[in-house]
Amino acid sequence: MSEIRTLALACKDASQAMFALDTETKRTLLHDMAAALEAQRDAILAANARDLQQATAKGIQGAMLDRLRLNESRLAGIATAVREIAGLPDPVGLVTRHDTRPNGLEVERVRIPLGVIAMIYEARPNVTADAAALCLMAGNAVILRGGSEALHSNMAIASALHTAFEKHDIPTAAVTLIEDLRRETMVELLQLSDIVDLAIPRGGEGLIHFVAEHARVPVIKHYKGVCHLFVDASADEALALNLLVDGKTSRPGVCNALETLLVHRDIATSFLPRAVQVLQECGVELRGCERSRALVEGIRPATDDDYAAEFLDLILAVRVVDDLGMAIGHIQRFGSDHTEVIATRNDEAARRFVQAIRSAVVMVNASSRFSDGGELGLGAEIGISTTRLHAYGPMGAEALTVERFIVRGDGQVRHPQSKL
Amino acid sequence: MSEIRTLALACKDASQAMFALDTETKRTLLHDMAAALEAQRDAILAANARDLQQATAKGIQGAMLDRLRLNESRLAGIATAVREIAGLPDPVGLVTRHDTRPNGLEVERVRIPLGVIAMIYEARPNVTADAAALCLMAGNAVILRGGSEALHSNMAIASALHTAFEKHDIPTAAVTLIEDLRRETMVELLQLSDIVDLAIPRGGEGLIHFVAEHARVPVIKHYKGVCHLFVDASADEALALNLLVDGKTSRPGVCNALETLLVHRDIATSFLPRAVQVLQECGVELRGCERSRALVEGIRPATDDDYAAEFLDLILAVRVVDDLGMAIGHIQRFGSDHTEVIATRNDEAARRFVQAIRSAVVMVNASSRFSDGGELGLGAEIGISTTRLHAYGPMGAEALTVERFIVRGDGQVRHPQSKL
Repeated sequence: MSEIRTLALACKDASQAMFALDTETKRTLLHDMAAALEAQRDAILAANARDLQQATAKGIQGAMLDRLRLNESRLAGIATAVREIAGLPDPVGLVTRHDTRPNGLEVERVRIPLGVIAMIYEARPNVTADAAALCLMAGNAVILRGGSEALHSNMAIASALHTAFEKHDIPTAAVTLIEDLRRETMVELLQLSDIVDLAIPRGGEGLIHFVAEHARVPVIKHYKGVCHLFVDASADEALALNLLVDGKTSRPGVCNALETLLVHRDIATSFLPRAVQVLQECGVELRGCERSRALVEGIRPATDDDYAAEFLDLILAVRVVDDLGMAIGHIQRFGSDHTEVIATRNDEAARRFVQAIRSAVVMVNASSRFSDGGELGLGAEIGISTTRLHAYGPMGAEALTVERFIVRGDGQVRHPQSKL
Repeated sequence: MSEIRTLALACKDASQAMFALDTETKRTLLHDMAAALEAQRDAILAANARDLQQATAKGIQGAMLDRLRLNESRLAGIATAVREIAGLPDPVGLVTRHDTRPNGLEVERVRIPLGVIAMIYEARPNVTADAAALCLMAGNAVILRGGSEALHSNMAIASALHTAFEKHDIPTAAVTLIEDLRRETMVELLQLSDIVDLAIPRGGEGLIHFVAEHARVPVIKHYKGVCHLFVDASADEALALNLLVDGKTSRPGVCNALETLLVHRDIATSFLPRAVQVLQECGVELRGCERSRALVEGIRPATDDDYAAEFLDLILAVRVVDDLGMAIGHIQRFGSDHTEVIATRNDEAARRFVQAIRSAVVMVNASSRFSDGGELGLGAEIGISTTRLHAYGPMGAEALTVERFIVRGDGQVRHPQSKL
């Protein structure tokens, strides 16, 4: 048997132990995990220093190096996040529906863990603790396959978490860190369809495509966010401007940042010059259609590629549209099913927008930046699904479970046999 | 562009139209579909006669030929099933949760259709109408890829359904029947990950494996049912015998039939001889462990392959176990996550069984044959999922939708900018 299969099978066995844990045990385990991260602070930071040194030697710098970096305050933040997850409601065992059938059968729908979740991610070592904690709180075991840049940090974090498991006599394989980071090993992991119940890739487009291409296990993609703001003819202009600036500039590098502004032609003459001025003061580069460029100077021509782009930068695509229908058509063509916003004072326009747009999150008069598990009340998130199956949008602990059926009877049979 | 991609894109466009339909329009559409099936009865039966003739010429006979056969009463049954689906509650638009955030945002979880569903199935032409009706009621468009034996029947049924679409000015591509049944075309369909939201394979193991191997779109498997009955030491023997006979003999060829009997050693001496006698009178062949064979004559030796088998026939595997834990271990090793039953009068044993078994449906003192969407109150089912993601167990209309987020505000931003 291959090494990765052996590891995954041990994780599957551990998932059976996780399935049986009650809420209080899981909470205590998570608190002990947080304490272990703090107790092993020096070892984790030393491992991280080694990763940083190797990354620097490879020429990695800027935002990527920053994502890799841990320090005392970031590590304290990771422990705090694990404790917050321990305080979430336990989705496992939740009875979502109950029905008594005419024949007397009591039918319940009850949430159970998915089983074994494989997280595939890149450079950020905090995901190792975050993802493990959220998967465990939902009763799952987890296989973690992080990026090579963070390997020593991830190993030190996993090692700390394991000390908490030993204390509770839970198999450490419930959190299995893959140290063999060859691509062919990842492919093998993604094809263990008798073991892995779900793979969640989190990272750049290249990683997501690789996972989707090679996986034979179910995948929930956390794909790009090409988020739109449509400023309707009836919009409150000051409100719309606030949403625009917050959406584009408050954190341009994240998936819930705005990438495209659509403006109704009846408000464009008034709104667009103001908007462009404010955005340019914030350092935003604008790329627009001909109509927008005729209204305001300083907008470069936009191509279809710009409308399809997740810039993750201070760049915004702009288009003036004839009406709500044209805005909807644009989003249907160029959107990525992540988050779209309408600014309007017209209830009927809001209703039509919500009805026609199939994205995971649709906002009326609120910033796209709220498209986040914490902000929407999930407590914590493992990511934002753009797969329209199982979970769509921010995924919390509940999205790491599934409903099954429990049926209680007193001897009911489907075809009674008279002879018995 | 390939022909299959062109067809699938038209289906995706139609899914946008389906998404926007209100409940009453969908119900009227389904009633018109049922009426069209009746109106085109002669054409459908003539097409079916052609399929039957070709199948007979190819040497197909018995149960498989019977599954392919339509007649007036079966066709009337198909129309009735479509009308019943029209009467189901509409899952689309259902608000499953509502939360007001501290900042005043109103957050709703609302069900929307999945989009485009590809049904991959085998010889039964009734699936063409059934699956189309259930997918449409949940607001989806559907791509149907049936078996070659039923092609003319399926074409005639799809043609009848399309007349109802034209009446409502809904694109007929909302129900797209694939007539090119080459394997490479099916592979291409299963890899249209920008178009197809879900593939559901229904059929034999070969088909399921083929789809799982080649799909790059999400798949929910309707895999085999190796269903177990565990007769606990405290079971009511008459009750357990009823469950056993119903589970094994009432319809042995379906996935919710029993395949394995596990008997607690403390009740085996009394229960097993009675059970074997009744089963043998029903024509059931028994294959058992050494302990069962020592207790009763006429049981052939069982292998591990027998314990893993979905016999779909009048064959039952038998094993005497030391206790509940050994029964659970057996099911964890050999089960297929479909349906398991415990017969017991001991609440604690029932609780432990339910807690340890992760199958989609767990029954206490009820027949495995109730593991069915209609019997469990879903109204109709598209199948029984053995994939522990999205839907697990019988899948009704609601399982063909997903929850998304709708957020309403009055201008909330995440990082207020003082300068605006």
